[in-house]
Amino acid sequence: MKLKTLAIVGVGLIGGSIGLAVKQRRLAERVLGVGRHEASLRRAQAAGAIDEISIDLVEAVRGAEMAVFCTPVDRIAEQVLQVGLECAPGTLLTDAGSAKAVVVRAIDGRLPKGVSFVGSHPLAGSEKRGPEHATANLFENKVTIVTPTSQTDAEALERTTSFWRALGARVRLMDPEEHDRALALTSHLPHLAAAALAGILKPELFDLTAAGFRDTTRVAAGDPSIWTGIFLQNKEAVLAALDHFDERLQRFREALKAGDRVALDSLLDQAKKVREDLENRD
Amino acid sequence: MKLKTLAIVGVGLIGGSIGLAVKQRRLAERVLGVGRHEASLRRAQAAGAIDEISIDLVEAVRGAEMAVFCTPVDRIAEQVLQVGLECAPGTLLTDAGSAKAVVVRAIDGRLPKGVSFVGSHPLAGSEKRGPEHATANLFENKVTIVTPTSQTDAEALERTTSFWRALGARVRLMDPEEHDRALALTSHLPHLAAAALAGILKPELFDLTAAGFRDTTRVAAGDPSIWTGIFLQNKEAVLAALDHFDERLQRFREALKAGDRVALDSLLDQAKKVREDLENRD
Repeated sequence: MKLKTLAIVGVGLIGGSIGLAVKQRRLAERVLGVGRHEASLRRAQAAGAIDEISIDLVEAVRGAEMAVFCTPVDRIAEQVLQVGLECAPGTLLTDAGSAKAVVVRAIDGRLPKGVSFVGSHPLAGSEKRGPEHATANLFENKVTIVTPTSQTDAEALERTTSFWRALGARVRLMDPEEHDRALALTSHLPHLAAAALAGILKPELFDLTAAGFRDTTRVAAGDPSIWTGIFLQNKEAVLAALDHFDERLQRFREALKAGDRVALDSLLDQAKKVREDLENRD
Repeated sequence: MKLKTLAIVGVGLIGGSIGLAVKQRRLAERVLGVGRHEASLRRAQAAGAIDEISIDLVEAVRGAEMAVFCTPVDRIAEQVLQVGLECAPGTLLTDAGSAKAVVVRAIDGRLPKGVSFVGSHPLAGSEKRGPEHATANLFENKVTIVTPTSQTDAEALERTTSFWRALGARVRLMDPEEHDRALALTSHLPHLAAAALAGILKPELFDLTAAGFRDTTRVAAGDPSIWTGIFLQNKEAVLAALDHFDERLQRFREALKAGDRVALDSLLDQAKKVREDLENRD
């Protein structure tokens, strides 16, 4: 694929990495970075992630064949709807948001004929922020989930999956709600648990932490406003995942209270197997 | 310090690393590895962690001026008491167990005159096991907690702290119960939470995990039998830490249910600050 103009709306770690990857792989003649703050767009430009900058969302996306929204997940639907009405037929809009159902369902059926939105979620990123931390290979061999609905245009879907594959990603198609239930368990709940573990640690105990604590709580350094948005956009699935987690913690508690060595061993053993299977899969 | 013979009882990752560090720093003329299985001792010897091997615990420790018990924490007290009765006056016994009060209190006042036990816990290690993963610098610039009681001999305490300092560790003295309460929060609870997160992940979701899940659950790959022992030896403090964790999870749940953005932001922001302060401390 070769685009004339790609617009990246929100050029932080993810948006910046898309820009770097697109430019390195020569997938677009022109990469336009769009945001509200000129200073941060200049940083993205200095990092080589975008060619040009714009602080006019509608104007910028109107001049592009494709736009990727890498803004906080609770702003995506609103921005897509605002921009979509002004786009030329054939424009493809996608995103990189961590929750999908609320976004996708808010947009479905509301865009003009010929303008398409296809939800995407690249499973990449880290607790770091900003275009300074962007890398051209961020998506390589990582899964990007694409979430079509019954209303998704087949060609738009094909263009979206081709785009992510061109960045090196392995694409998986999922229903938006199925995505949200899965990510609640694989990403949102672990983030919440990490934040709860870090949050209850008093400063006088900092010196008594080792690698285990640091690994387990690393993601809690992520941007709170981003994560608040993710949790709220995926509220029901996160609450269900939290219930599931609570039940498992309760099994640990009961086994520990009872001094039940066999039950504890079995709970830990099962967790170890999951963790090992995960590593072996890589 | 210079020892004639150091006995290391249990030569896995920790015991093997002690052996390598002692030999690299020439702190002992002879390092004797003690265990039940000759094959694993041979692996430790091949890794250069010990000079000689023995499968006779009492005999081996009787011939040493100092012995470090790196066996599972639920076996340490019993082994120390068994061996202690046979040791010559002046023998120093210490350990590397992750829970201290049960061990230290079980031994206190039960050893012959002149034979000392001083509890230790080097905050080092990983989810890896075995002398193959041992490294001479495992303890460098890491905290080792030493847990004297009112009955601890001053010279034995001095020898113990000197030993760990000679391996590069920063030594901190703590009351055994205070150690256990602290480690329940900094190590045991994070392990339990990681195991619960890993344990509820179904195989069909493996492909949808990213770096965050892997970091958060890494420690769950640890040896179940070791961790069952730690949990049971530190049962009350771990249950209290779990209650504390539950309360914090409950605050997240309430904020999420209520769609309370300010409360979620504040919970996440506080966790982020802890995490950043931890990193900056390093």
